[in-house]
Amino acid sequence: MNISTFNNKKVLITGGLGFIGSNLAIQLIEAGAKVTLVDSLIPTYGGNLFNIEPVKYRARINISDVRDPHAMKHLVAGQDYLFNLAGQTSHLDSMEAPETDLNINVLAQLHILEACRHHNPDVRLVFASTRQIYGKPLQIPVDESHPLNPVDVNGINKLAGEQYHRLYYDVYGIRSSILRLTNTYGPRMRIKDARQTFLGIWIRRLLEGLPMQIFGDGNQVRDYNYVEDVVDALLITALSDNSYGQVYNLGSEEDLSLSKTAQIMTEIHDGSFEYVPFPSSRKSIDIGDYQGSFEKIKSQLGWLPRTSFRDGMRETIAYYKQYLEKYL
Amino acid sequence: MNISTFNNKKVLITGGLGFIGSNLAIQLIEAGAKVTLVDSLIPTYGGNLFNIEPVKYRARINISDVRDPHAMKHLVAGQDYLFNLAGQTSHLDSMEAPETDLNINVLAQLHILEACRHHNPDVRLVFASTRQIYGKPLQIPVDESHPLNPVDVNGINKLAGEQYHRLYYDVYGIRSSILRLTNTYGPRMRIKDARQTFLGIWIRRLLEGLPMQIFGDGNQVRDYNYVEDVVDALLITALSDNSYGQVYNLGSEEDLSLSKTAQIMTEIHDGSFEYVPFPSSRKSIDIGDYQGSFEKIKSQLGWLPRTSFRDGMRETIAYYKQYLEKYL
Repeated sequence: MNISTFNNKKVLITGGLGFIGSNLAIQLIEAGAKVTLVDSLIPTYGGNLFNIEPVKYRARINISDVRDPHAMKHLVAGQDYLFNLAGQTSHLDSMEAPETDLNINVLAQLHILEACRHHNPDVRLVFASTRQIYGKPLQIPVDESHPLNPVDVNGINKLAGEQYHRLYYDVYGIRSSILRLTNTYGPRMRIKDARQTFLGIWIRRLLEGLPMQIFGDGNQVRDYNYVEDVVDALLITALSDNSYGQVYNLGSEEDLSLSKTAQIMTEIHDGSFEYVPFPSSRKSIDIGDYQGSFEKIKSQLGWLPRTSFRDGMRETIAYYKQYLEKYL
Repeated sequence: MNISTFNNKKVLITGGLGFIGSNLAIQLIEAGAKVTLVDSLIPTYGGNLFNIEPVKYRARINISDVRDPHAMKHLVAGQDYLFNLAGQTSHLDSMEAPETDLNINVLAQLHILEACRHHNPDVRLVFASTRQIYGKPLQIPVDESHPLNPVDVNGINKLAGEQYHRLYYDVYGIRSSILRLTNTYGPRMRIKDARQTFLGIWIRRLLEGLPMQIFGDGNQVRDYNYVEDVVDALLITALSDNSYGQVYNLGSEEDLSLSKTAQIMTEIHDGSFEYVPFPSSRKSIDIGDYQGSFEKIKSQLGWLPRTSFRDGMRETIAYYKQYLEKYL
């Protein structure tokens, strides 16, 4: 992947002040792209102005909500690339406020695609979907043909949002591609509470000297991607002409139990973990073990996750040791 | 299936003045059920007050929109059964007005399920989904495990609505079951234009002495269910305790090409048909051949389609010969 291709290109990133969006923005801006970041900065979501500290004078920041169809129309027009990363990502919040999740993950996606169709049909679009749409895996590793049985409102809505992207390519030729992300971690993730991935709150507790809490027996398996690898996947996909209308899992060759995950983290930074009963609201929407197959993106687009969990987590913890107060 | 079980039971039917809803209502009212019909009577949809002519003094009619969450709360409370049939069903309209389709087929479904959860968690709910969620069949016949790749906004939205019903059973115990309907035909269907199933407009043209128009070469295969058989399926499902959270295809053992379909219709009533090119707006969302497998509902619930296309269409045409002006 030749990131210099993005030099002087116009790029719009929805959710651009969020975890993945800001890491992507930094790379693109350093490669010479003209980047506009759209973010609602809703406090319970991932947006954080500090995330783009290294490039803050070189990014165009547009604080607005993807649910605002009028703003999106103007923002989409004229862009070469659209990385569509804005979303409500909390599984638990989606059960408590399903309509909010629907408005962001379904309705706003339709507005964004309609904006592309009518105001920028030549844009190159990459959409961030989620492994949550598979629900409880029937077999592991999960590839892209696995049945789709999401176990929470967020999964159902993200699936609809994803399918709109495929449909708008099939019917209108909007050149969209879809990545199904698994647990992503790294600098600039939200660590304030347990709303998003559990790794965030674990990092916070570790740095605050509190035990990390494992729900259940700790045997549950997850795969993790370091954010730099996910940014790579987004860029590689955007530059590929073979991925229009396609959907790709990300994933990792390392599958780690929660206990093992916590253990590695305490080896990087002194701390402890404890086992606590599963809260019932979480148990009912839990997916059990998960590992995704990334064979398709590997063979078709040449993407590979390059960062081991230990290395990525070392970088991550180092970042939060330095900037903890910006994320509390 | 013992329809007398519904005697004195309170039943709510959304889309109750529509095609399938009204046929269901007539049977339930004749069996002694206390039936409330919710319908928006939006002119381009299927609702028609004449549909319940035989029982009009025995049904409680509530003209309102399922998109109105406040009304639904009151309507759902106290019901024993909820047949959730309201929907935007036009594939073409869903592409032209995707947000309307989303509001009816996704958002309103969430409101209905939230109303059940908070105001009537013991209700027995049957939801009418559609074979459209499969998209272009990868193999025929299509069973319930076929991949879900809807080819239009309607299919994506109906899938989300369907998955909410499954989820609300899995997480909240709302006893919902899902039927994936294929082409249903019979008395009380909308025949005014080509918005809904093509069989409607064919019947109208046949009775008006105009040629029925076949898009393409006429070799495309469809399966049809007579509305009485679909009503049977709804009732059987509602009375089964084994179908909570389950999804079932309907279908037919007869698979008929469009040419053969038109030919049978001209044998029942003098008329003609002609081949015309596929309009591009329809071609892009067409699913090709389709036949569903109904093995699951047959083996688990004992449902079978009992009416041949020829017999059902004879009844249907006889109905429209008598009441044509009520449907124009």
